[in-house]
Amino acid sequence: MSEQTIRVSLGDIQRPVAAGLDQVAAELRRIIAADFPIIADANDHLLRMKGKLFRPMLLLLSQQAVGATDPRVVTLAAVVELIHLATLVHDDSVDHSALRRGMPTLNALFSHQVAVIMGDYLYSRAIIELVRLGELEPLRVFARVTNEMTIGEMRQLEAHDKLAYSESQYDMLIRAKTASLLSGACEVGALTAPAPVREALSRFGMLLGMAFQITDDLLDYTQPEAVTGKPSGLDLKEHKITLPLIAVLPRLSADERQVVAHLMATDDPSDAQVAEVIRLVEVGGGLEVARRRALDLAQQAEAQLAALPASTAREALRDSIAYAVERRS
Amino acid sequence: MSEQTIRVSLGDIQRPVAAGLDQVAAELRRIIAADFPIIADANDHLLRMKGKLFRPMLLLLSQQAVGATDPRVVTLAAVVELIHLATLVHDDSVDHSALRRGMPTLNALFSHQVAVIMGDYLYSRAIIELVRLGELEPLRVFARVTNEMTIGEMRQLEAHDKLAYSESQYDMLIRAKTASLLSGACEVGALTAPAPVREALSRFGMLLGMAFQITDDLLDYTQPEAVTGKPSGLDLKEHKITLPLIAVLPRLSADERQVVAHLMATDDPSDAQVAEVIRLVEVGGGLEVARRRALDLAQQAEAQLAALPASTAREALRDSIAYAVERRS
Repeated sequence: MSEQTIRVSLGDIQRPVAAGLDQVAAELRRIIAADFPIIADANDHLLRMKGKLFRPMLLLLSQQAVGATDPRVVTLAAVVELIHLATLVHDDSVDHSALRRGMPTLNALFSHQVAVIMGDYLYSRAIIELVRLGELEPLRVFARVTNEMTIGEMRQLEAHDKLAYSESQYDMLIRAKTASLLSGACEVGALTAPAPVREALSRFGMLLGMAFQITDDLLDYTQPEAVTGKPSGLDLKEHKITLPLIAVLPRLSADERQVVAHLMATDDPSDAQVAEVIRLVEVGGGLEVARRRALDLAQQAEAQLAALPASTAREALRDSIAYAVERRS
Repeated sequence: MSEQTIRVSLGDIQRPVAAGLDQVAAELRRIIAADFPIIADANDHLLRMKGKLFRPMLLLLSQQAVGATDPRVVTLAAVVELIHLATLVHDDSVDHSALRRGMPTLNALFSHQVAVIMGDYLYSRAIIELVRLGELEPLRVFARVTNEMTIGEMRQLEAHDKLAYSESQYDMLIRAKTASLLSGACEVGALTAPAPVREALSRFGMLLGMAFQITDDLLDYTQPEAVTGKPSGLDLKEHKITLPLIAVLPRLSADERQVVAHLMATDDPSDAQVAEVIRLVEVGGGLEVARRRALDLAQQAEAQLAALPASTAREALRDSIAYAVERRS
């Protein structure tokens, strides 16, 4: 993949599995349905803030790319989105976030209590559906991934306030927190394929997921709230150290490090403090380092697709890499 | 079961499965082991506040009572305790409780964030172990139970501040919150038994669990903190309405109802307010109603055991009923 990739739309990438994705939305609604009032209200809210179904799309494309056809794939794709949703709900609760995708979070709209319980509700519904499908392999993959995600969340807590946070710690964090579920989505889509193909798709998802998260962390430095649906500089406000800052830390003067340390030690940093650190990261070349790393991972992800025969689905997976690193929100 | 049951000790009841219970403690330690520092620290704390292994004991006794022997039962018994632990961790976080079993909770000792993530970590470890055992049936039972428990937690939130809370709502609450997991423990222990036996043990666990929770709610009215490890009157302080209060509500005068309503409307009720409502419940006969209901459920639980052949394990299950309704902590 060259740095001059052609801008692709999510709609284009979704086309080969568009019918399946429509079913996924309905299946998700069925799986989480509840006749208990608070849960039904929380469900309605979650379904309204429905995301781009990026993980279900990867799962459906992976199945199509390995030439398998099993109608249960729609349920598996709904489950991967459900696990993602459950994780977001608990993440927002842990981070005390008020906005997600431009809409109020469950903890903001209901309460912290409701958010914790809803995350548990959604996750246990996901397990019930996987059991209902009657196969252990998807359960094995998703249980492992979910556990990795909790360890990623702990790594994130540990990352607070630490100017010594290293790129290798960051790598472990984004693998666990984000890339593991994308990897799991691709792997579960390819469960019936021979082991080398299954493993190549698992690696594809991991590399894609890392590029995806680095891009997310970059957007926090570059994009205004109106585009991303959350305040820019939010990571810094929450004392989260991501790759752009990690890259410049060793090159900062003692005074500049002091500016960063001061922000990290301030409970609720001002916009001016955040803007000053963003400027240090820009001037120091941190954004460029992160962009190059994302593109490098994108190239490695693309190389994994050589394990697949040529197909429309394989091309869509290739385009999903470009989408992951070029998106603006 | 007469009301003059002989006091039995937990040690006596555990005797038929004592060797298995020792293995359960070691198995639990193995399953939750982590090399990530915060998780390892939180694990150590949880293992130090190890409970009475009541649910693993029920699972082991149920297996023995149906004449089955499968070494995997130790893992299943560890998993039922692990699910219980994960639930306690999230409950304490939701309730902002500072003490559990006389020790600080994870949210008090670490943070609210760590408690939410640890609950997710423990639950996903439980699923990984169930998948490793290679059978879907225990997963089916435990996934259903875990989902019921989340609905029970929501019912508890809904119960706040409501003087109109009815006994049937309370029944649904304690079934979902507590009895479902005891029922699941007994059912999983008896999975290889013929359906009528399996179902009888599932009902046994449900009835036992309801009696167990009513007894718990009674202890909150009757026992000092030094015995239970948590402040007495805590439920009232947290605006939780349980059976003793539900039973007297219809018999209270308008003035007395006002006293209860005032407590429920006070953010942090004083000890005097709590003591006054406890007095109203005692004088109104609420404790007696709850005791009779627990004993009635205990009798129904005992009747289920007729489906089992006579054995030491069956006698221990019978004694566990007496323990559940007569315990002082």
